[in-house]
Amino acid sequence: MDRVFNFSAGPSMLPLEVLKKAQSELINYNRTGMSVMEMSHRSTAFEEIINRAEELVRELMAVPENYSVLFLQGGASTQFAMVPLNLYKNKKADYILTGAWADRAIKEAQKYGEVRVLASSKDKNFSYIPKVNSFNQDSDYVHITMNNTIYGTRYTWIPQTGNIPLVADMSSNILSEQVDVSKFALIYAGAQKNLAPAGITLVIARKDFI
Amino acid sequence: MDRVFNFSAGPSMLPLEVLKKAQSELINYNRTGMSVMEMSHRSTAFEEIINRAEELVRELMAVPENYSVLFLQGGASTQFAMVPLNLYKNKKADYILTGAWADRAIKEAQKYGEVRVLASSKDKNFSYIPKVNSFNQDSDYVHITMNNTIYGTRYTWIPQTGNIPLVADMSSNILSEQVDVSKFALIYAGAQKNLAPAGITLVIARKDFI
Repeated sequence: MDRVFNFSAGPSMLPLEVLKKAQSELINYNRTGMSVMEMSHRSTAFEEIINRAEELVRELMAVPENYSVLFLQGGASTQFAMVPLNLYKNKKADYILTGAWADRAIKEAQKYGEVRVLASSKDKNFSYIPKVNSFNQDSDYVHITMNNTIYGTRYTWIPQTGNIPLVADMSSNILSEQVDVSKFALIYAGAQKNLAPAGITLVIARKDFI
Repeated sequence: MDRVFNFSAGPSMLPLEVLKKAQSELINYNRTGMSVMEMSHRSTAFEEIINRAEELVRELMAVPENYSVLFLQGGASTQFAMVPLNLYKNKKADYILTGAWADRAIKEAQKYGEVRVLASSKDKNFSYIPKVNSFNQDSDYVHITMNNTIYGTRYTWIPQTGNIPLVADMSSNILSEQVDVSKFALIYAGAQKNLAPAGITLVIARKDFI
Protein backbone atom coordinates (compact mmCIF):
# COMPACT_ATOMS: atom_id res chain seq x y z
CA MET A 1 0.00 0.00 0.00
CA ASP A 2 2.89 2.36 0.71
CA ARG A 3 4.65 1.75 -2.61
CA VAL A 4 4.70 4.62 -5.10
CA PHE A 5 4.82 4.19 -8.87
CA ASN A 6 8.03 5.43 -10.44
CA PHE A 7 7.72 5.98 -14.18
CA SER A 8 11.25 7.36 -14.52
CA ALA A 9 13.35 6.04 -17.41
CA GLY A 10 15.82 4.98 -14.73
CA PRO A 11 16.63 4.22 -11.98
CA SER A 12 13.47 2.17 -12.36
CA MET A 13 11.16 0.27 -10.04
CA LEU A 14 12.26 -3.22 -9.02
CA PRO A 15 9.78 -6.10 -8.63
CA LEU A 16 8.42 -6.18 -5.07
CA GLU A 17 9.05 -9.92 -4.76
CA VAL A 18 12.71 -9.35 -5.62
CA LEU A 19 13.04 -6.59 -3.02
CA LYS A 20 11.33 -8.78 -0.40
CA LYS A 21 13.68 -11.68 -1.11
CA ALA A 22 16.73 -9.40 -0.90
CA GLN A 23 15.38 -7.98 2.35
CA SER A 24 14.78 -11.38 3.94
CA GLU A 25 18.33 -12.51 3.06
CA LEU A 26 20.13 -9.26 3.84
CA ILE A 27 21.57 -10.29 7.23
CA ASN A 28 21.98 -14.02 6.67
CA TYR A 29 22.31 -15.11 3.06
CA ASN A 30 21.32 -18.72 2.42
CA ARG A 31 22.34 -19.79 5.98
CA THR A 32 25.95 -18.64 5.49
CA GLY A 33 25.71 -16.57 8.68
CA MET A 34 26.60 -13.37 6.84
CA SER A 35 25.18 -10.79 4.48
CA VAL A 36 26.07 -11.01 0.82
CA MET A 37 27.69 -7.60 1.42
CA GLU A 38 30.16 -9.18 3.88
CA MET A 39 31.08 -12.17 1.75
CA SER A 40 34.38 -12.84 0.01
CA HIS A 41 34.12 -12.57 -3.74
CA ARG A 42 36.17 -15.78 -3.80
CA SER A 43 33.75 -17.74 -1.56
CA THR A 44 31.71 -20.65 -2.89
CA ALA A 45 28.51 -18.90 -1.81
CA PHE A 46 29.30 -15.82 -3.85
CA GLU A 47 30.58 -17.78 -6.84
CA GLU A 48 27.19 -19.49 -6.99
CA ILE A 49 25.46 -16.08 -7.04
CA ILE A 50 27.59 -14.62 -9.82
CA ASN A 51 27.52 -17.82 -11.87
CA ARG A 52 23.73 -17.97 -11.58
CA ALA A 53 23.45 -14.31 -12.65
CA GLU A 54 25.53 -15.10 -15.73
CA GLU A 55 23.45 -18.20 -16.49
CA LEU A 56 20.24 -16.17 -16.30
CA VAL A 57 21.58 -13.53 -18.71
CA ARG A 58 22.66 -16.30 -21.09
CA GLU A 59 19.27 -18.00 -20.86
CA LEU A 60 17.11 -14.87 -21.19
CA MET A 61 19.08 -13.42 -24.10
CA ALA A 62 20.09 -16.73 -25.70
CA VAL A 63 23.73 -15.67 -25.55
CA PRO A 64 25.87 -17.96 -27.77
CA GLU A 65 28.75 -19.95 -26.22
CA ASN A 66 31.42 -17.88 -27.95
CA TYR A 67 30.39 -14.73 -26.07
CA SER A 68 31.59 -13.61 -22.65
CA VAL A 69 29.13 -12.10 -20.17
CA LEU A 70 30.80 -9.46 -18.00
CA PHE A 71 29.52 -7.49 -15.02
CA LEU A 72 31.53 -4.27 -14.87
CA GLN A 73 31.40 -0.91 -13.10
CA GLY A 74 31.27 2.65 -14.35
CA GLY A 75 28.05 2.65 -16.34
CA ALA A 76 27.64 2.91 -20.09
CA SER A 77 29.70 6.11 -19.96
CA THR A 78 32.80 4.14 -19.00
CA GLN A 79 32.13 1.87 -22.00
CA PHE A 80 32.29 4.97 -24.21
CA ALA A 81 36.00 4.96 -23.27
CA MET A 82 36.59 1.22 -22.75
CA VAL A 83 35.33 0.30 -26.22
CA PRO A 84 37.88 2.40 -28.15
CA LEU A 85 40.65 1.91 -25.54
CA ASN A 86 40.37 -1.87 -25.79
CA LEU A 87 39.19 -2.39 -29.35
CA TYR A 88 40.97 0.16 -31.51
CA LYS A 89 43.56 -1.51 -33.75
CA ASN A 90 43.56 0.71 -36.85
CA LYS A 91 42.38 3.51 -34.53
CA LYS A 92 39.39 4.16 -36.78
CA ALA A 93 35.72 3.53 -36.10
CA ASP A 94 32.32 4.29 -37.64
CA TYR A 95 29.68 5.89 -35.40
CA ILE A 96 26.04 6.72 -36.10
CA LEU A 97 24.79 9.83 -34.29
CA THR A 98 21.22 9.41 -33.05
CA GLY A 99 21.13 11.45 -29.84
CA ALA A 100 22.81 12.82 -26.72
CA TRP A 101 24.33 9.51 -25.62
CA ALA A 102 25.64 8.65 -29.09
CA ASP A 103 27.18 12.11 -29.10
CA ARG A 104 28.99 11.43 -25.82
CA ALA A 105 30.21 8.06 -27.09
CA ILE A 106 31.63 9.82 -30.15
CA LYS A 107 33.35 12.56 -28.14
CA GLU A 108 35.02 9.97 -25.93
CA ALA A 109 36.18 7.78 -28.85
CA GLN A 110 37.66 10.84 -30.58
CA LYS A 111 40.22 11.05 -27.78
CA TYR A 112 41.81 7.79 -28.86
CA GLY A 113 41.55 7.70 -32.65
CA GLU A 114 39.61 8.68 -35.74
CA VAL A 115 35.81 8.66 -35.58
CA ARG A 116 33.85 8.71 -38.82
CA VAL A 117 30.26 9.81 -38.16
CA LEU A 118 28.58 7.95 -41.02
CA ALA A 119 25.15 9.45 -40.47
CA SER A 120 23.34 11.78 -38.10
CA SER A 121 19.73 12.72 -37.40
CA LYS A 122 20.78 15.90 -35.62
CA ASP A 123 19.31 18.00 -38.48
CA LYS A 124 15.80 17.02 -37.33
CA ASN A 125 16.46 17.03 -33.55
CA PHE A 126 17.19 13.29 -33.55
CA SER A 127 13.58 12.48 -34.46
CA TYR A 128 14.52 9.53 -36.67
CA ILE A 129 17.13 6.78 -37.07
CA PRO A 130 19.17 7.18 -40.25
CA LYS A 131 19.51 4.08 -42.39
CA VAL A 132 23.12 3.28 -43.26
CA ASN A 133 24.06 0.60 -45.77
CA SER A 134 27.74 1.24 -46.38
CA PHE A 135 30.55 1.09 -43.84
CA ASN A 136 34.28 1.83 -43.93
CA GLN A 137 36.15 -1.43 -44.47
CA ASP A 138 39.14 -0.27 -42.40
CA SER A 139 37.03 0.54 -39.34
CA ASP A 140 37.70 -1.43 -36.17
CA TYR A 141 33.97 -1.41 -35.42
CA VAL A 142 30.65 0.31 -36.08
CA HIS A 143 28.94 1.84 -33.02
CA ILE A 144 25.19 2.41 -32.64
CA THR A 145 22.89 3.48 -29.80
CA MET A 146 19.93 1.11 -30.10
CA ASN A 147 17.36 3.19 -28.22
CA ASN A 148 17.24 6.92 -27.53
CA THR A 149 15.01 7.55 -24.54
CA ILE A 150 15.13 11.34 -24.78
CA TYR A 151 13.88 11.45 -28.38
CA GLY A 152 11.69 8.35 -28.41
CA THR A 153 13.53 6.72 -31.28
CA ARG A 154 14.91 3.21 -31.65
CA TYR A 155 16.39 0.87 -34.19
CA THR A 156 13.78 -1.55 -35.51
CA TRP A 157 16.48 -3.27 -37.55
CA ILE A 158 20.08 -4.35 -37.00
CA PRO A 159 22.58 -2.69 -39.37
CA GLN A 160 24.26 -5.22 -41.65
CA THR A 161 27.92 -4.39 -41.14
CA GLY A 162 29.33 -7.53 -42.75
CA ASN A 163 32.84 -8.25 -41.52
CA ILE A 164 33.04 -5.07 -39.45
CA PRO A 165 32.20 -5.74 -35.79
CA LEU A 166 28.98 -4.09 -34.59
CA VAL A 167 28.99 -2.50 -31.11
CA ALA A 168 25.72 -1.38 -29.51
CA ASP A 169 24.74 0.64 -26.46
CA MET A 170 21.55 -1.12 -25.31
CA SER A 171 21.18 0.60 -21.93
CA SER A 172 17.52 1.49 -22.45
CA ASN A 173 16.24 -1.40 -24.54
CA ILE A 174 18.07 -4.41 -23.13
CA LEU A 175 15.74 -7.27 -22.14
CA SER A 176 12.71 -5.25 -23.27
CA GLU A 177 12.71 -7.06 -26.62
CA GLN A 178 14.36 -10.11 -28.17
CA VAL A 179 17.70 -9.35 -29.78
CA ASP A 180 19.85 -11.67 -31.87
CA VAL A 181 23.10 -11.41 -29.92
CA SER A 182 25.06 -13.16 -32.69
CA LYS A 183 24.62 -10.09 -34.90
CA PHE A 184 26.74 -8.01 -32.50
CA ALA A 185 30.42 -8.15 -31.57
CA LEU A 186 29.81 -6.29 -28.31
CA ILE A 187 26.70 -5.16 -26.43
CA TYR A 188 26.78 -2.95 -23.34
CA ALA A 189 24.11 -1.64 -21.01
CA GLY A 190 24.14 0.34 -17.79
CA ALA A 191 22.01 -1.75 -15.42
CA GLN A 192 19.92 0.97 -13.82
CA LYS A 193 17.39 1.46 -16.61
CA ASN A 194 16.15 -2.02 -17.44
CA LEU A 195 18.03 -4.58 -15.39
CA ALA A 196 18.98 -3.82 -11.81
CA PRO A 197 19.95 -1.09 -9.35
CA ALA A 198 22.60 1.38 -10.47
CA GLY A 199 26.18 0.23 -10.03
CA ILE A 200 26.86 -2.42 -12.64
CA THR A 201 27.18 -2.48 -16.38
CA LEU A 202 26.40 -5.58 -18.40
CA VAL A 203 28.79 -6.29 -21.27
CA ILE A 204 28.25 -9.16 -23.69
CA ALA A 205 31.22 -9.57 -26.02
CA ARG A 206 32.25 -12.05 -28.70
CA LYS A 207 35.39 -13.72 -27.35
CA ASP A 208 37.46 -13.37 -30.53
CA PHE A 209 36.67 -9.64 -30.63
CA ILE A 210 37.98 -8.87 -27.15
CA MET B 1 22.96 -16.42 17.10
CA ASP B 2 23.28 -17.37 13.41
CA ARG B 3 25.98 -14.82 12.65
CA VAL B 4 29.47 -16.11 11.90
CA PHE B 5 32.67 -14.23 12.62
CA ASN B 6 34.56 -13.21 9.50
CA PHE B 7 38.18 -12.31 10.21
CA SER B 8 39.01 -11.77 6.54
CA ALA B 9 40.99 -8.65 5.67
CA GLY B 10 38.08 -7.76 3.43
CA PRO B 11 35.27 -7.92 2.51
CA SER B 12 34.79 -7.47 6.20
CA MET B 13 31.93 -7.84 8.69
CA LEU B 14 29.47 -4.96 8.91
CA PRO B 15 27.91 -3.85 12.21
CA LEU B 16 24.69 -5.80 12.84
CA GLU B 17 22.77 -2.62 13.70
CA VAL B 18 23.74 -1.15 10.31
CA LEU B 19 22.59 -4.26 8.47
CA LYS B 20 19.31 -4.28 10.45
CA LYS B 21 18.63 -0.63 9.61
CA ALA B 22 19.37 -1.23 5.92
CA GLN B 23 17.09 -4.25 5.99
CA SER B 24 14.20 -2.40 7.62
CA GLU B 25 14.43 0.40 5.03
CA LEU B 26 15.10 -1.77 1.99
CA ILE B 27 11.60 -1.65 0.50
CA ASN B 28 10.46 1.77 1.71
CA TYR B 29 13.24 4.23 2.49
CA ASN B 30 12.26 6.99 4.91
CA ARG B 31 8.57 6.87 3.80
CA THR B 32 9.45 7.69 0.18
CA GLY B 33 7.48 4.65 -0.99
CA MET B 34 10.50 3.18 -2.73
CA SER B 35 13.78 1.41 -2.08
CA VAL B 36 16.99 3.42 -2.16
CA MET B 37 17.89 1.12 -5.07
CA GLU B 38 14.95 2.48 -7.10
CA MET B 39 15.56 6.14 -6.39
CA SER B 40 16.76 8.81 -8.79
CA HIS B 41 20.28 9.99 -8.03
CA ARG B 42 18.88 13.49 -8.59
CA SER B 43 16.07 13.14 -6.01
CA THR B 44 16.04 15.14 -2.78
CA ALA B 45 15.88 11.91 -0.77
CA PHE B 46 19.05 10.57 -2.35
CA GLU B 47 20.86 13.90 -2.20
CA GLU B 48 20.32 13.87 1.55
CA ILE B 49 21.87 10.38 1.76
CA ILE B 50 24.96 11.22 -0.25
CA ASN B 51 25.44 14.59 1.44
CA ARG B 52 25.18 12.95 4.84
CA ALA B 53 27.74 10.30 3.84
CA GLU B 54 30.15 13.05 2.81
CA GLU B 55 29.52 14.97 6.04
CA LEU B 56 30.28 11.86 8.10
CA VAL B 57 33.57 11.26 6.28
CA ARG B 58 34.50 14.92 6.80
CA GLU B 59 33.62 14.72 10.49
CA LEU B 60 35.29 11.39 11.26
CA MET B 61 38.52 12.22 9.41
CA ALA B 62 38.52 15.98 10.10
CA VAL B 63 38.79 16.65 6.36
CA PRO B 64 39.73 20.30 5.72
CA GLU B 65 37.42 22.51 3.65
CA ASN B 66 39.84 22.71 0.72
CA TYR B 67 39.53 18.96 0.09
CA SER B 68 36.91 17.20 -2.04
CA VAL B 69 35.38 13.93 -0.84
CA LEU B 70 34.52 11.68 -3.78
CA PHE B 71 32.71 8.33 -3.92
CA LEU B 72 33.93 6.55 -7.04
CA GLN B 73 33.78 3.08 -8.57
CA GLY B 74 36.44 0.62 -9.66
CA GLY B 75 38.30 0.03 -6.41
CA ALA B 76 41.79 1.13 -5.47
CA SER B 77 43.04 -0.63 -8.62
CA THR B 78 41.27 1.93 -10.80
CA GLN B 79 42.99 4.66 -8.78
CA PHE B 80 46.32 3.08 -9.77
CA ALA B 81 45.41 4.34 -13.28
CA MET B 82 43.32 7.41 -12.42
CA VAL B 83 46.06 8.98 -10.32
CA PRO B 84 48.67 9.16 -13.12
CA LEU B 85 46.06 9.71 -15.86
CA ASN B 86 44.66 12.74 -14.08
CA LEU B 87 47.65 14.06 -12.20
CA TYR B 88 50.66 13.62 -14.43
CA LYS B 89 51.92 16.98 -15.72
CA ASN B 90 55.68 16.40 -16.07
CA LYS B 91 54.79 12.71 -16.50
CA LYS B 92 57.18 11.79 -13.70
CA ALA B 93 56.36 10.44 -10.26
CA ASP B 94 58.13 8.95 -7.24
CA TYR B 95 56.85 5.64 -5.87
CA ILE B 96 57.91 3.67 -2.81
CA LEU B 97 57.65 -0.11 -3.22
CA THR B 98 56.41 -1.81 -0.06
CA GLY B 99 54.39 -4.77 -1.32
CA ALA B 100 52.13 -6.38 -3.93
CA TRP B 101 49.69 -3.47 -4.16
CA ALA B 102 52.42 -0.84 -4.40
CA ASP B 103 53.91 -2.98 -7.18
CA ARG B 104 50.62 -2.92 -9.09
CA ALA B 105 50.29 0.83 -8.63
CA ILE B 106 53.79 1.24 -10.08
CA LYS B 107 53.12 -1.04 -13.06
CA GLU B 108 49.97 0.90 -13.93
CA ALA B 109 51.64 4.32 -13.58
CA GLN B 110 54.50 3.17 -15.85
CA LYS B 111 52.02 2.99 -18.73
CA TYR B 112 51.55 6.76 -18.67
CA GLY B 113 54.93 8.22 -17.77
CA GLU B 114 58.16 7.80 -15.86
CA VAL B 115 58.11 6.12 -12.47
CA ARG B 116 61.08 6.51 -10.16
CA VAL B 117 61.05 3.80 -7.47
CA LEU B 118 62.83 5.71 -4.74
CA ALA B 119 63.04 2.79 -2.33
CA SER B 120 61.95 -0.80 -2.03
CA SER B 121 61.77 -3.41 0.72
CA LYS B 122 61.53 -6.25 -1.79
CA ASP B 123 65.04 -7.44 -0.82
CA LYS B 124 63.64 -8.61 2.53
CA ASN B 125 60.23 -9.83 1.30
CA PHE B 126 58.60 -6.49 2.12
CA SER B 127 59.15 -7.03 5.86
CA TYR B 128 59.84 -3.35 6.57
CA ILE B 129 58.97 0.16 5.36
CA PRO B 130 61.98 1.97 3.91
CA LYS B 131 62.57 5.48 5.20
CA VAL B 132 62.95 8.03 2.42
CA ASN B 133 64.04 11.58 3.08
CA SER B 134 64.79 12.90 -0.39
CA PHE B 135 62.38 13.24 -3.30
CA ASN B 136 62.73 14.29 -6.95
CA GLN B 137 61.75 17.94 -7.25
CA ASP B 138 60.34 17.49 -10.76
CA SER B 139 57.96 14.71 -9.70
CA ASP B 140 54.23 15.33 -10.06
CA TYR B 141 53.65 13.42 -6.84
CA VAL B 142 55.04 10.84 -4.42
CA HIS B 143 52.97 7.66 -4.01
CA ILE B 144 52.95 5.41 -0.93
CA THR B 145 50.91 2.43 0.26
CA MET B 146 50.20 3.20 3.91
CA ASN B 147 49.44 -0.33 5.08
CA ASN B 148 50.43 -3.68 3.59
CA THR B 149 48.05 -6.34 4.83
CA ILE B 150 49.88 -9.26 3.25
CA TYR B 151 53.21 -8.47 4.97
CA GLY B 152 51.94 -6.91 8.17
CA THR B 153 53.80 -3.64 7.66
CA ARG B 154 52.59 -0.08 7.88
CA TYR B 155 53.85 3.48 7.91
CA THR B 156 54.05 4.84 11.42
CA TRP B 157 55.10 8.21 10.01
CA ILE B 158 54.05 10.43 7.12
CA PRO B 159 56.86 11.10 4.62
CA GLN B 160 57.80 14.77 4.50
CA THR B 161 57.64 15.49 0.77
CA GLY B 162 57.69 19.27 1.04
CA ASN B 163 56.21 20.88 -2.07
CA ILE B 164 55.72 17.58 -3.86
CA PRO B 165 52.15 16.31 -3.45
CA LEU B 166 51.83 13.10 -1.42
CA VAL B 167 49.38 10.44 -2.65
CA ALA B 168 48.48 7.49 -0.44
CA ASP B 169 46.62 4.22 -0.87
CA MET B 170 44.89 3.81 2.51
CA SER B 171 42.58 0.92 1.59
CA SER B 172 43.50 -1.16 4.60
CA ASN B 173 44.16 1.45 7.27
CA ILE B 174 41.55 4.13 6.58
CA LEU B 175 39.47 5.03 9.65
CA SER B 176 41.41 2.54 11.77
CA GLU B 177 43.64 5.31 13.06
CA GLN B 178 43.72 9.11 13.07
CA VAL B 179 45.42 10.57 10.02
CA ASP B 180 46.27 14.23 9.36
CA VAL B 181 44.57 14.64 5.98
CA SER B 182 46.27 18.00 5.40
CA LYS B 183 49.60 16.20 4.95
CA PHE B 184 48.30 14.49 1.80
CA ALA B 185 47.34 15.80 -1.62
CA LEU B 186 45.22 12.75 -2.37
CA ILE B 187 44.07 9.75 -0.34
CA TYR B 188 42.24 6.78 -1.81
CA ALA B 189 40.74 3.64 -0.33
CA GLY B 190 38.68 0.78 -1.71
CA ALA B 191 35.69 0.62 0.64
CA GLN B 192 35.46 -3.13 1.16
CA LYS B 193 38.23 -3.50 3.73
CA ASN B 194 37.50 -0.90 6.36
CA LEU B 195 34.50 1.18 5.33
CA ALA B 196 31.59 -0.45 3.58
CA PRO B 197 30.54 -3.22 1.19
CA ALA B 198 32.56 -3.61 -2.00
CA GLY B 199 31.59 -1.31 -4.85
CA ILE B 200 32.81 2.15 -3.95
CA THR B 201 36.16 3.81 -3.56
CA LEU B 202 36.66 6.78 -1.29
CA VAL B 203 38.89 9.53 -2.66
CA ILE B 204 39.84 12.59 -0.62
CA ALA B 205 41.71 15.13 -2.73
CA ARG B 206 43.02 18.63 -2.21
CA LYS B 207 41.03 20.79 -4.62
CA ASP B 208 43.99 22.69 -6.09
CA PHE B 209 45.73 19.37 -6.82
CA ILE B 210 42.88 17.93 -8.91
